[in-house]
Amino acid sequence: MNYAVIMAGGSGTRFWPVSRTATPKQFLAITEQRTMIQATVDRLLPVFPKENILIVGNQAHETLLTEQLPEFTADQFILEPFGRNTAPAIGLAAAVLRKKDPEAVMLVVPSDQIIRKQDHFLEIVKEGLLLAKAEPHALITLGLKPSRPETGYGYIQIDEDFHLDSYPNAFPVKTFAEKPNLETARRFLAAGDFLWNSGMFIWQAETILQEIKTHIPDLDIELDALSPFFGTSGFYPVLSESYGRMPNISIDYGIMEKAGLVFVLKADLGWSDVGSWDEVANLSHTDENANALTGTVLVSGTSNCLVKGKEKLIALVGVEDLIVVETADALLICRKGQSQQVKNIVDQLKIGDFGGYL
Amino acid sequence: MNYAVIMAGGSGTRFWPVSRTATPKQFLAITEQRTMIQATVDRLLPVFPKENILIVGNQAHETLLTEQLPEFTADQFILEPFGRNTAPAIGLAAAVLRKKDPEAVMLVVPSDQIIRKQDHFLEIVKEGLLLAKAEPHALITLGLKPSRPETGYGYIQIDEDFHLDSYPNAFPVKTFAEKPNLETARRFLAAGDFLWNSGMFIWQAETILQEIKTHIPDLDIELDALSPFFGTSGFYPVLSESYGRMPNISIDYGIMEKAGLVFVLKADLGWSDVGSWDEVANLSHTDENANALTGTVLVSGTSNCLVKGKEKLIALVGVEDLIVVETADALLICRKGQSQQVKNIVDQLKIGDFGGYL
Repeated sequence: MNYAVIMAGGSGTRFWPVSRTATPKQFLAITEQRTMIQATVDRLLPVFPKENILIVGNQAHETLLTEQLPEFTADQFILEPFGRNTAPAIGLAAAVLRKKDPEAVMLVVPSDQIIRKQDHFLEIVKEGLLLAKAEPHALITLGLKPSRPETGYGYIQIDEDFHLDSYPNAFPVKTFAEKPNLETARRFLAAGDFLWNSGMFIWQAETILQEIKTHIPDLDIELDALSPFFGTSGFYPVLSESYGRMPNISIDYGIMEKAGLVFVLKADLGWSDVGSWDEVANLSHTDENANALTGTVLVSGTSNCLVKGKEKLIALVGVEDLIVVETADALLICRKGQSQQVKNIVDQLKIGDFGGYL
Repeated sequence: MNYAVIMAGGSGTRFWPVSRTATPKQFLAITEQRTMIQATVDRLLPVFPKENILIVGNQAHETLLTEQLPEFTADQFILEPFGRNTAPAIGLAAAVLRKKDPEAVMLVVPSDQIIRKQDHFLEIVKEGLLLAKAEPHALITLGLKPSRPETGYGYIQIDEDFHLDSYPNAFPVKTFAEKPNLETARRFLAAGDFLWNSGMFIWQAETILQEIKTHIPDLDIELDALSPFFGTSGFYPVLSESYGRMPNISIDYGIMEKAGLVFVLKADLGWSDVGSWDEVANLSHTDENANALTGTVLVSGTSNCLVKGKEKLIALVGVEDLIVVETADALLICRKGQSQQVKNIVDQLKIGDFGGYL
């Protein structure tokens, strides 16, 4: 059977003041009506029955998860006692699935990204699921056609000469490349055979667990010891002990860069990880003055502004290129192109006596 | 005796969202700790005993007036049933004062301006009070040395050749000039003998009432009919009938431009009518980044901004030259130099279903 594992354990403050420690990005409706994790579930439902979707989240977000996904049962959530890296989270999900279904094929997807080409995404996923079933040892990752010389992502170079007729979008990996500098990123973009590493994977649960056994044996030991407690009341007490002992390593670094049979599914998905307010601005529909205004907003002589109002009437006069975000207790006013500086504000909040705003 | 009449009946929306129909500028602490009307009273107390100060306000602001000026007694307020022009308001105050003290000399001052050279102001006022006592028929107005080619004020040209030894700052009027265009305003500024018309006057109550009798006889008739009710419970019922019949005319247009013996006291007071948020920004003390921040404000890469926060934590990132004003229900974000456009927002509020924000 096919399963989907949604990785929802992330935290982050790039969307301050909307995202807080208590409410990271995946629980926010940043560009759509539904929250990002809800949209992620919706996106998968045409291929994966609801009961075949598993959510790996953080125990601190249990209430958010159950409120936002009320149609999910308790056993569909795996709640980490604290944030760890992707290898433990994915390993845990794989072990749970294998126990349930030894032939489980699993898609791993982040909970906080946007995919505008939904149909193409599902086609690629279906191709990957078939490939994972046909080639039991294959590790498959989705590689995204880059749209700009982004320096914030890792890249995967594919070997386009090697090509399977039945799986037209699947290519072997030539190299994994770390986050490049701008010059290198431009070269990657021009070359055409470098793709963004998306954090989306497809494989058999058994296969990734064998790879973990080979490459991250300490993780394998912990997963084996946990296995008897899956689905029992002892699971979380044991996990809270065990999780800290699991190696804090990413699945990319721990497995993908070392494994033998890796395929990349080349995809052009209209994808965004919505990594900053600037990206939200880029993704937003704008009016005739290039403004994207939500809430009660009045403008005079104002253009190219993103406003996310909440309670107050917001009036903009004679301004341009601003991002304005209002929450119940805070207000961000940021020049477009500067939203990476929002972290400076978050740092000030951490240093100062502003804990409540984090 | 000398009396001061504070004109506090104005309304205005140039300080939206802080100033509302219900709370015009004079009741706000825009640049100082005390509200503008409180600062106006404070400014007068070295020369005028508190009980010799009269406030002409609007009945709609009675609560604000009595709350902000608790040391004043009810008979020190003259409450207009609705806003009218300056001639009726000043005429009414003059009639009340004359009845109380036939030799009353009165200073008329607005309630919503800033005077930074307090000592010089009091010297000029004292000179004017002496002149008004010595020259019973004189109408005296304060003319302000212009600091910029302002097109929003009227100007008075003085005759500097005619000059009284005992009153070194008093000059006769040559001409009254309407609000000029920029070119004319520059010429006025360069000429040196054009002063800003300040709306501050000194005269005997009897004298201005005689001038009203001559130049605005319809107003004189109403004032005469009201006079028996001054200080009685019948006053406001009769005033509410009478006020609408009083000519809606300014003291400048109705009297000053027609009267014979007008003196101008030339003064350099560090004066401002604080007519816009830009002017507030100009008057505000700034930090090393040229920011003037009140409330809970954090900044990153931000300069030359005025922020008046109230409840929310306000974070500014990568912005400059902004005016940000938060109130309980609204937020203004305005580029410096554009604050005259705030009226466009107020106009939108009037047209739309936004009455509560006015």
